Amino acid sequence: MDRLIGMIRKKDNPTAAGLDPKLEYLPAFILEKARREHGDGFEAAAAAIVDFNTALIDALCDIVPAVKLQSAYYELYSWQGVKAFCDTVAYARKKGLYVIADVKRNDIGSTAAAYADAYLGKTALMGGEAEAFGADAVTVNGYLGIDGIEPFLRCCEAWDKDIFVLVKTSNPSSGELQNIPVVGGLPLYAKMGELVEDWGEGFIGQYGFSRAGAVVGATYPHQLKELRKLLPYIFFLVPGYGRQGGRAEHAAFAFNQDGLGGIVNASRSIMCAYREEGCDERDFAGAAHREALRMRRDINEAIAAKKS
Amino acid sequence: MDRLIGMIRKKDNPTAAGLDPKLEYLPAFILEKARREHGDGFEAAAAAIVDFNTALIDALCDIVPAVKLQSAYYELYSWQGVKAFCDTVAYARKKGLYVIADVKRNDIGSTAAAYADAYLGKTALMGGEAEAFGADAVTVNGYLGIDGIEPFLRCCEAWDKDIFVLVKTSNPSSGELQNIPVVGGLPLYAKMGELVEDWGEGFIGQYGFSRAGAVVGATYPHQLKELRKLLPYIFFLVPGYGRQGGRAEHAAFAFNQDGLGGIVNASRSIMCAYREEGCDERDFAGAAHREALRMRRDINEAIAAKKS
Repeated sequence: MDRLIGMIRKKDNPTAAGLDPKLEYLPAFILEKARREHGDGFEAAAAAIVDFNTALIDALCDIVPAVKLQSAYYELYSWQGVKAFCDTVAYARKKGLYVIADVKRNDIGSTAAAYADAYLGKTALMGGEAEAFGADAVTVNGYLGIDGIEPFLRCCEAWDKDIFVLVKTSNPSSGELQNIPVVGGLPLYAKMGELVEDWGEGFIGQYGFSRAGAVVGATYPHQLKELRKLLPYIFFLVPGYGRQGGRAEHAAFAFNQDGLGGIVNASRSIMCAYREEGCDERDFAGAAHREALRMRRDINEAIAAKKS
Repeated sequence: MDRLIGMIRKKDNPTAAGLDPKLEYLPAFILEKARREHGDGFEAAAAAIVDFNTALIDALCDIVPAVKLQSAYYELYSWQGVKAFCDTVAYARKKGLYVIADVKRNDIGSTAAAYADAYLGKTALMGGEAEAFGADAVTVNGYLGIDGIEPFLRCCEAWDKDIFVLVKTSNPSSGELQNIPVVGGLPLYAKMGELVEDWGEGFIGQYGFSRAGAVVGATYPHQLKELRKLLPYIFFLVPGYGRQGGRAEHAAFAFNQDGLGGIVNASRSIMCAYREEGCDERDFAGAAHREALRMRRDINEAIAAKKS
C-alpha cells in the first residue's frame, strides 16, 4: 500500500472519488451530445460515460489521490461500457491517480490468476504481453480461501499493486452471513479479517500495512473500530460515507493514532454534487471539486478530533 | 430452473460444456489465422476465441443442453475479450443452448441490480432498453447477504432466468472459510446453503427446484451428498469433474431419486480433448464432440448406478 499511502500523504487527503456513471446520474447536456454523435445504444452510453469521467478526473486529480470505478456501472453497458472502463482507467492513471477497480472478483486457482493478470498485471498474447485493464488495485471476495487470493498477491508483488478483500460490507444485510458467530466466538467478518491478515503476511510495506487490504463499511462504526484494533497491519477501503449514511466520525475509526490506515470512498455525493448544490449542470465538475474539498476537510477534521 | 431442466431431459444430458478459451488452449491454426488477419494484440485474441467457440458450439449444440462461459478468460483480453464473450453468448443462444455466465458477481443493492440487468435482464438506455450480455443464468457470491441476491432474483422472475450461488466450491482451499463451524454446529457452507434455500423460497418451479441454485464442487463428494439431502429444492451446478479430479460417481451425489438436481460442468477436458486424444488439431471440435458424448454416458451411468 506504500504507493497509495504516499499519495494520500502528499495530497493530505485520505479519500477516494467513486466513478459509478449510471446514465441517470449524468447531466442532460452530456447525454444529448452523445446521442447526437453516436445514436442511442451502448456506444452512445459509453461515449457519454467517458466524457463525464474525463471532466470529473480533470476537476479532481489535484485534490484526491485515488478514484474507484464500480465495474457494474460499466458492464451495464456491455462491452462498449467495458471499453469506457478501460479508457477511464488509462486517463486517470495519466493524470497521476491511483485507480481502484471495484470488481469484487473471486475464483479458483488458475482462473483467479487470469483475473489478477487482467486487472493488475499483464496478459500473455500472441505477440508479447499487454495490460488488459491496468488498474492499481482491485477489490476481491475471499469466500474461496487462499487459492483465490494468492494469485492476486503474486501479481501485486510483481507489479507493485494492491487488493482489498471484502470483510464487513456497508449494506443493510451484510450481517446476514458476515455477523454469524463462528465456533471460538468471533463473528465471521472478524474471522475473514484474520484470514486477510494471514494472507498478507510477507507483503508488509514501509508504512506497516500489507498489500492485502480490507473493505469495511463506514455504516458499521462499531465493527470498524473493532477491526482497526484487531488488524493493525490491514489498510481499509471504507465505502458507505455520504449517501449510504456513514458519517465522518464513523469513518474516522478506520485510522490509527498516526492518522493512517484507510481511504474513505464517496461516489454519488461527488458525482452528483451538481444536483445537491443546484448549480448549472454544466458546472457538474466544479460542484464535484467543491464537494471533494468539503469531504476532505470533513474526514481530516474527524481524524484530528479522534486523535486529540 | 424449469427451462434448463427441460433441456437436460430433452437431450438426456445433465452436463454442461465450459468455454474457457485461454489462448494456450487453442489450436495453433486458429491462432495463426487470427494473427494473419488481426495482428497480435487483444483484437486478434478475441477473433481467435470467437472462431474457437463457434466451432465448439456447432459441434456440441445437439448433445449438451448448456454451456458455461468463465468470464475471467474473456476479461483477460480486455474489452475486446468481453466483446468475444457477448458474441459467444449470442451464438450459443441462437443455437438453442442455455448459457451460464460464470461471473461470480457480488455487490450491494443498486449495484447488484446493475449486474443483474447487465447479465440477465435489460439495460435502460437513452433510446429504450437492450440486452447487455443476454445470458440465461449467472453465478453469484452470497457473502453480502440478501441485498446482493434479491436484485438478481427479481430479474430472474421478470425474464425467466436463474442464478447459482457459491456454496461449496471445488478448489483445494475452499474449506479455509467455507468449512468453518458456525455456532449451532453447521459448517459455513451448509449455513450458506440454507440461506440460498431461504432466498429462493417463492421461486420454485414445476420440477420442484428454485431459481436460486447453488455451486457445489464434485471434488467434495461427502459434502455434495450431505447438501443434496439438506437442500431438496436447490438445483446444483457441479464443477470439478474431469481435470480437477471429480469422478462421475462423485458428481452423481448431486442428483435425487428422480435423477434430477444438478448439471455437471467440464471445461478443459472438452475444450482440449483434441490434445488428450492426440488427433489432428483441425479436428478439435470433433474431439470435443466425442468427449462430450463420453461424459454424458459416464455421468448418466453413474446416476443410474446410484439409483439401483
